[in-house]
Amino acid sequence: MLNELIRQMTLKEKVGQLNQRLYGWQSYEKTAEGIQLTDYFKDEVKRWDSLGVIYGVFRSDPWSEKNLETGLSKEEAYQVSKMIQTYVAENTRLKIPVLLTEECPHGHQGIDSITTPTNYAAGASWNPNLYQAAQEIVAEELREKGAHVGLISTLDLCRDPRWGRTEESFSEDPYLAGEFTKAAVNGLQGQKSEQSLAGNRVLATLKHFAAQGSIMGGHNAAPVEIGERELKEIHLPMMQAGIDAGALMCMAAYNDIDGVPCHINQHLLTTLLRDEMGFEGAVMSDGCALDGVASQLGKAQTAALALKSGLDMSLWDNVYPYLEEAVLEGLLEEAELDQAVYRVLSLKEKVGLFAEAPEYNALTQAEKISRNVALAEESMVLLKNDGILPIDSDKTKRIALFGPHIDNIYHQLGDYTPYKNLDECINLTQGMAEAAQNRDLTYAMTRGSLISSEIEGGIEEALTIAETSDVLFVTLGGSSARDFSTEFDANGAALSGSNEMTSGENIDLADLAIPKPQMELLKALHQTGKPIVGIVIAGRPHLLTECLPYVNGLLLAGYPGQHGGRAVANVLFGATNPSGKLAISIPDANGQLPVYYNYRDTPFKKDYLDLAGQPKFTFGYGLSYTDFSLANTQVIKNETGWLVTGEITNIGECAGAEVVQVYAKKYSKDVLPRVKKLCGFDKIFLESGEIKAFEIQIENSELTDFDLTMNRRVFTDFKLQVEIRGDVQTFDCQN
Amino acid sequence: MLNELIRQMTLKEKVGQLNQRLYGWQSYEKTAEGIQLTDYFKDEVKRWDSLGVIYGVFRSDPWSEKNLETGLSKEEAYQVSKMIQTYVAENTRLKIPVLLTEECPHGHQGIDSITTPTNYAAGASWNPNLYQAAQEIVAEELREKGAHVGLISTLDLCRDPRWGRTEESFSEDPYLAGEFTKAAVNGLQGQKSEQSLAGNRVLATLKHFAAQGSIMGGHNAAPVEIGERELKEIHLPMMQAGIDAGALMCMAAYNDIDGVPCHINQHLLTTLLRDEMGFEGAVMSDGCALDGVASQLGKAQTAALALKSGLDMSLWDNVYPYLEEAVLEGLLEEAELDQAVYRVLSLKEKVGLFAEAPEYNALTQAEKISRNVALAEESMVLLKNDGILPIDSDKTKRIALFGPHIDNIYHQLGDYTPYKNLDECINLTQGMAEAAQNRDLTYAMTRGSLISSEIEGGIEEALTIAETSDVLFVTLGGSSARDFSTEFDANGAALSGSNEMTSGENIDLADLAIPKPQMELLKALHQTGKPIVGIVIAGRPHLLTECLPYVNGLLLAGYPGQHGGRAVANVLFGATNPSGKLAISIPDANGQLPVYYNYRDTPFKKDYLDLAGQPKFTFGYGLSYTDFSLANTQVIKNETGWLVTGEITNIGECAGAEVVQVYAKKYSKDVLPRVKKLCGFDKIFLESGEIKAFEIQIENSELTDFDLTMNRRVFTDFKLQVEIRGDVQTFDCQN
Repeated sequence: MLNELIRQMTLKEKVGQLNQRLYGWQSYEKTAEGIQLTDYFKDEVKRWDSLGVIYGVFRSDPWSEKNLETGLSKEEAYQVSKMIQTYVAENTRLKIPVLLTEECPHGHQGIDSITTPTNYAAGASWNPNLYQAAQEIVAEELREKGAHVGLISTLDLCRDPRWGRTEESFSEDPYLAGEFTKAAVNGLQGQKSEQSLAGNRVLATLKHFAAQGSIMGGHNAAPVEIGERELKEIHLPMMQAGIDAGALMCMAAYNDIDGVPCHINQHLLTTLLRDEMGFEGAVMSDGCALDGVASQLGKAQTAALALKSGLDMSLWDNVYPYLEEAVLEGLLEEAELDQAVYRVLSLKEKVGLFAEAPEYNALTQAEKISRNVALAEESMVLLKNDGILPIDSDKTKRIALFGPHIDNIYHQLGDYTPYKNLDECINLTQGMAEAAQNRDLTYAMTRGSLISSEIEGGIEEALTIAETSDVLFVTLGGSSARDFSTEFDANGAALSGSNEMTSGENIDLADLAIPKPQMELLKALHQTGKPIVGIVIAGRPHLLTECLPYVNGLLLAGYPGQHGGRAVANVLFGATNPSGKLAISIPDANGQLPVYYNYRDTPFKKDYLDLAGQPKFTFGYGLSYTDFSLANTQVIKNETGWLVTGEITNIGECAGAEVVQVYAKKYSKDVLPRVKKLCGFDKIFLESGEIKAFEIQIENSELTDFDLTMNRRVFTDFKLQVEIRGDVQTFDCQN
Repeated sequence: MLNELIRQMTLKEKVGQLNQRLYGWQSYEKTAEGIQLTDYFKDEVKRWDSLGVIYGVFRSDPWSEKNLETGLSKEEAYQVSKMIQTYVAENTRLKIPVLLTEECPHGHQGIDSITTPTNYAAGASWNPNLYQAAQEIVAEELREKGAHVGLISTLDLCRDPRWGRTEESFSEDPYLAGEFTKAAVNGLQGQKSEQSLAGNRVLATLKHFAAQGSIMGGHNAAPVEIGERELKEIHLPMMQAGIDAGALMCMAAYNDIDGVPCHINQHLLTTLLRDEMGFEGAVMSDGCALDGVASQLGKAQTAALALKSGLDMSLWDNVYPYLEEAVLEGLLEEAELDQAVYRVLSLKEKVGLFAEAPEYNALTQAEKISRNVALAEESMVLLKNDGILPIDSDKTKRIALFGPHIDNIYHQLGDYTPYKNLDECINLTQGMAEAAQNRDLTYAMTRGSLISSEIEGGIEEALTIAETSDVLFVTLGGSSARDFSTEFDANGAALSGSNEMTSGENIDLADLAIPKPQMELLKALHQTGKPIVGIVIAGRPHLLTECLPYVNGLLLAGYPGQHGGRAVANVLFGATNPSGKLAISIPDANGQLPVYYNYRDTPFKKDYLDLAGQPKFTFGYGLSYTDFSLANTQVIKNETGWLVTGEITNIGECAGAEVVQVYAKKYSKDVLPRVKKLCGFDKIFLESGEIKAFEIQIENSELTDFDLTMNRRVFTDFKLQVEIRGDVQTFDCQN
């Protein structure tokens, strides 16, 4: 059917299918008379006598200038999606439905959608199932509005935390990030099938392909100097995981790899992605990326080169319109264009645009909140605890909450966040108030400091509150809040109105220290002698070494999402035992970077003269309110790999979860193996005193590297190392 | 003749030619009866019934425990070399002479040899001719002792100044480093010829091949993750320059490249080095590097793999002895071994070991000192000058000298330095004393601080001296002095005896700040209100931002060599006008790394949120006591490339030299070009008011990069940018 459709299409109509030029949110206007489609939208439909793909119709954020008033509620979004499809059906020759794509790095960046923890937090949960459950919310919310595709960062592996997009990274480890990529695809698309997606599912566009996390100096979109082996070992496994789970869309990355921009990189987008990795879907540009290439090469030439390289769809650029010219000038065969058109139409078919949408059972709001809180809770990593945590509410009368994050919901949400209905959110103050109320405690709060600047009199006010409190909670960290200052004013918050963003896209840092005003507040509170619990709210690893002497307990919460306040309180008061493990190592100093655990195993001197080489907290680290022990651990070769079995016991006083981590080591004798390579894990929940058997299957596909001439090979002689905190067991293995 | 010789050789004798196992300095003993060869040496000769190559017979340093008493003077060295050759001639079947190799990264690491400025300094001279003249000293001194080969770091491009071996790097730029590599080869070997070397020349072994300067985190010998294009553009040009100049030896690097250790990297050592780059010489191991590989792979397997990869000679390892076993076990063809043996014997033929040494005119000691001082002077980079420099000796009565470097000669010499006869050296105090005496000034000095620790009462003593002085000179920086504390005691210096090394091999730093005790001294002296001139003595870029407010002038001297004190004084007092330009950029903060100027030109946000992306001082920067202007600049295409012509005028009041720097820009439209790429330069000396025409030929070989599929191509459409400080002119060019 699709081939027949393509045969009927003019060159112009084909090029129209490959263009995703519009800023979708400019397609409509809300006026007193209701919602209308704009000329901006209609002209584009007319231009191509069709509309292939449109991005971000429902997007809400300061940049789009679509807020709670000017933007689209859930119901309005659905209405606009219908208007768009109807307009295109009524005003084009072939009436091909439009594919609506939306941003959803941690929940849909649109009004009335749930904002989940960012990837930096979610990765630390080591629980892809919970993350998948959260993505099911996102998919359903998107589809209910009329969107078909969710754009989600899953491929960006953080190798340098100076990078402002670290918050979009699950991990520094490709296997862990790959498991979350699978979960994203399964959550958004549903389980892989040859059929159409379910009625509450959307296609996932995985971002960004490839190697964006290895940029020079942590500068966003900067050059990437890595070689083919580093690329294949570190940056491609997430995409392979996504493909295996059924991903049919990905987005090319802004950066180059070893000099060749990803957008015109045939080796990357065709040889590796399609020929070697088996991708059968479509590749989308990143926003305006082709304009940059075309400023050197020329528009038609860039369009032809990009399409030949394997790039199927545009985003915002004024280059893919020139595909028409490229064909007419003979730079491109029309058959090459047809292939890309076929891929785009296939997506429309897959998502059910040519059929009736199937019915489904919608999630309740309570279920959504429950899933979102659970993910946030499990994302938290306990870094230090002298016994202060969990808070003993019997011995505590009054708690106090300080820090810049405590009552500004946007500080706990991350970049790419929509305007929020505040009564649907639980900020830290609200979460702690809930917890205090349930436990008959009193509480008090004041910020004491902004993210990067002082509050006049803030410390004094904080000290006054601290004097009469039993336990002090202090937030530390950064913020990716774009300029929502108007909202803040409406809330009466005494903000300077300046932008406090220290994280997010293009907000790269040279200094990872906790900003000075926050440290000043912490040190002042420490002078009171009261016990202090630090709560790190941030989108990236910060230097925490300086904070440690001033806190009795330290909890890393990342950006925990719109219900994060409740999750944090549940963990601090012990309703939930923290079970997160670092998915990105935390450095000890700026001059120590990089600190990822999985560098190559070669006998170099790890320590600097003036600083140990070891990060302050390494990948996989995380405390609990209880302790665990391993017993009877074994590894057994089987048909598809190795089965790791054993028993884990909760030897402490309270229920909790531990992650059994399995690493491969010493797996190559010529090419340098990595010091360790995560190849399996399982998060296991146990009551106090409970013993559980575990089985972790390590697939042979994870036990591979590339030989001296870059042929993939399965490990023959290697070690498997089974780790929990405080217990490491190593086994020799032969294949 | 060599093939005939090889036909006569047993397998054992062949393997003997490829082994360089001995720590050469253990080959002899000095006793009351004179010098004897040791059993250690004789056993090795017996083992192979030959001796191929021996390293470091004349080496002197704390590690070898060969000092001025236990080590070999120039005359003794010659005597021992004769004893070695005689012993081998009399005790082996084929009487093949031995190749003696010695370390000479900045002068021979042996007694009675001149220590020149390290590469970090020399590169900043932008004067390869002066450097070549210094290498002629080194060659002659080596050959006079009976050595045939000088090992010299020329291939190590610094990409991260945390690396302790930065002092062995000429630059962060491959073209500049390549010109110095040519100069090293020409200086050590003489001009390229098919004939034997002259009697005062040695073979150069260029170190290290390849990419050692791109190690992860600046950790010495750590993994290198770069790709093929980065390798070819940044790290191979120096080797190509060396090959073009006639280099016949190089040393493999400890590191891997993208996972494959250089020592077993056939792609690197054969495909690239020999097939593509045209190298016809022999490749030597780095010390014990093969032992590391063999600990995984096994000895015979490693030996076979390394030899097949293109590694001809060993160094200290217990792996190449197993070449015999490798052949017997069929892991290696004897013909493959013969090829390596042929290469080694060819070196012996080239250096004249099978013939009488030709005569030559020896350099006088005065000429040597003059050359060494000149190189040191031109290496100095003036970073700041508010008018304090040059010192006006008419208005100055008394100068004072402070800092840890002022009277410890080893602090100004760098790593790989032999024990020195102090009366042949000129430390900073001595140099300034000379200058003061010549100008009828009085001077005073005290250290005030050690490199990394305080001197009790040091600051007070410094302040007392400062009070009565007109101008204060303060050294700042690091030291690569290994533990020479016994010597210090003999000098009466009140050192704690602890090792003050902050630079050199395996001495990598996480923090590039000037050590705190030195900053304290500087700040205290600043309180006096006296004018202060900072003199940076160091082996790497340090963070100087913090120092700038406290100094009126700042001169970067690197490690200026054993006559550096005179050179520094000449520059400070204006006898020589400083003309050095940074060859390695100086960062503004640890968190800003990397800061090399020649990254790829892609539209990313250069600045961090909290710090500009620009280094504090960039490659090519350097002030003068005078000013220059460019006129009538033109670029003209000619047969072999482009000729840049123009006129430069010294528009200031004193004589001086300026470096005209020519960069290529915008030379590629698909693969990302670099922001700038140095492709030519000329250092021009002018009297005050003088105008000189210049011609800089830019060869097409420098105007190349690699296309999307890694084929080398000449730029077709590009810009040439001609720069001096304060004047930049850009020209469009088409090929």
